[in-house]
Amino acid sequence: SQEGKSNLERQYFTSYEDLGVHLEMIRDVSRTNTYRLAILKSFDKIAGKVVADIGAGTGILSCFCVQAGARKVYAIEASSIAEKAKEVIIQNKMDDKIEIIKGRVEEINLPEKVDVIVSEWMGYSLLYESMLNSVICARDKWLKAGGWMLPSSAHIFIAPFTDDSVQQERVDYWKKTADLYGVDMSCLVPHAKKSLTNHIQIELIEDCDLIARACKCIDLDLNTVQEKDLKQIQGRFHFDCFGSDKLSGFVTWFTTAFNSVDPDKEPVLLSTAPSSQPTHWRQSLMYLEDSIDVQQGTTLEGSVTLSPNPSNARFLDVNLRFTIDGKDEKSNVYQLNDGLP
Amino acid sequence: SQEGKSNLERQYFTSYEDLGVHLEMIRDVSRTNTYRLAILKSFDKIAGKVVADIGAGTGILSCFCVQAGARKVYAIEASSIAEKAKEVIIQNKMDDKIEIIKGRVEEINLPEKVDVIVSEWMGYSLLYESMLNSVICARDKWLKAGGWMLPSSAHIFIAPFTDDSVQQERVDYWKKTADLYGVDMSCLVPHAKKSLTNHIQIELIEDCDLIARACKCIDLDLNTVQEKDLKQIQGRFHFDCFGSDKLSGFVTWFTTAFNSVDPDKEPVLLSTAPSSQPTHWRQSLMYLEDSIDVQQGTTLEGSVTLSPNPSNARFLDVNLRFTIDGKDEKSNVYQLNDGLP
Repeated sequence: SQEGKSNLERQYFTSYEDLGVHLEMIRDVSRTNTYRLAILKSFDKIAGKVVADIGAGTGILSCFCVQAGARKVYAIEASSIAEKAKEVIIQNKMDDKIEIIKGRVEEINLPEKVDVIVSEWMGYSLLYESMLNSVICARDKWLKAGGWMLPSSAHIFIAPFTDDSVQQERVDYWKKTADLYGVDMSCLVPHAKKSLTNHIQIELIEDCDLIARACKCIDLDLNTVQEKDLKQIQGRFHFDCFGSDKLSGFVTWFTTAFNSVDPDKEPVLLSTAPSSQPTHWRQSLMYLEDSIDVQQGTTLEGSVTLSPNPSNARFLDVNLRFTIDGKDEKSNVYQLNDGLP
Repeated sequence: SQEGKSNLERQYFTSYEDLGVHLEMIRDVSRTNTYRLAILKSFDKIAGKVVADIGAGTGILSCFCVQAGARKVYAIEASSIAEKAKEVIIQNKMDDKIEIIKGRVEEINLPEKVDVIVSEWMGYSLLYESMLNSVICARDKWLKAGGWMLPSSAHIFIAPFTDDSVQQERVDYWKKTADLYGVDMSCLVPHAKKSLTNHIQIELIEDCDLIARACKCIDLDLNTVQEKDLKQIQGRFHFDCFGSDKLSGFVTWFTTAFNSVDPDKEPVLLSTAPSSQPTHWRQSLMYLEDSIDVQQGTTLEGSVTLSPNPSNARFLDVNLRFTIDGKDEKSNVYQLNDGLP
């Protein structure tokens, strides 16, 4: 229902009212410093120009843009944290350059077009929260032809992994109650396993737990991606396993790239890979019901499809399909909803 | 509104559908083993008798009661976890003795009176979730005269503490962004402090951080306490500080006692004190806006008042009042709502 929808939206924005959420994001040094670096390095594109900051939160990215020389920044924020952002920009004497606009991108207007759009819109598994839709909307409404997107692209990686620690902790515990307390609860194992294998687990994993070379399976060009593309995004993967291992499942993570103004230079990269500094996004683990023995050269081929959950578009469904050495097709849907850590 | 209320109630029971919540409780060894011990030690009261288990969850306490010789256990559970409890009792071949009843105590009937009521009803700060009301309702509806309550009493303790680690992490971080990122966000400190000092923090604290001997301030006798008593429960405290310290705030915790069948014997105690094995309830910290210097013999006197939040009776408001050496009365209300860890 429309009413149900607007309730969900209210809940979504309310979750950003609490300063604790912003603390978690700002003290994610990898996130905040990469944005800072990317913005300062985009000096040539930003100096003297007009910027829109989509989902400005406490306003820190808008401040970075002023430090990079922006003439004007429209800091758009739908939640009441906008009032705190106002204080931050006054404290930093940037209130002559940054204009806080409290509202939803879809519902407001700007007095002018902008040269640059900056936004930290990424959720768990990249697309949880569906905030990218609002960035696309802002781009189509306000970005000048030839304008600059920060970040400019996003990429999802996938790899097979071996790690049964989460499984042991959340599923196998039910086998231990007979010994611990004299009551056998092992009949709950299938239920716990179902819960584990029906939901994406947001956890940190070690790079050494990957059992094949990771594969980039999805590329989003933020200059061109359309809202309709996000209704269902599919990527394909192919792995040749390193050696004898137990395949526990597949893990995804993402990177976002901030193109360099000089096309010959490498983009600045924000990486949430297991080999990178841990971020608050951690990684997205999809466990199989039962682990599978693989050997050196075993091939795992398949696809991963991300789509918004039909009943709450800010939740995410991920459909995983794969074969082992071309046989034995398996398929499962993993949800990412609000039972989050 | 009545509808709003029943929505809140639905949400409350839905939160117990997920097996993860039950896992957290069952692997709290202090909790589960103390209940087990207390039930097995109550053999004389339980053997051959009829028991009601209020909020049975996965059914483990009902199983303990059968192990203690219960002739019949009514396991009452309003959430859908009741179906899992059914599987557990079948697996343990106790389905001839345990009857799972899916429903709310307030709305169902039992075919007979019971000799014993067992329940693990305690929430954060003891009374968060207000589940005790349902236990009282069950007692008044079904417990025979002279029946046995497990636990039989509950007690809230309070102590002044010194510990600014939470404050440093959540409040003082905002002073660091100027150095870290070149954007001064120290104007957010008062907001972060307000959030810290308006909410009970559920954290573990070390016994050595207490700066005076703890004081038992509230006693609830589960045989006699009435629902109306829970509308507002007040306890008083008096502390003589150990020595020179910074008072950061006050911490509460609770114990529940399971009386021994033999009145000369000590009750079995479930303690959530800082000096006890940590439990999933941790402790309840109430921070002051600014820490206060105290000396050896400084007296802190006052009261703590717990009441259900007027807009959601499962949330808790705690009113703290105190004086320092008889002067300087301070007062603050701390909320415990669903922004929980």
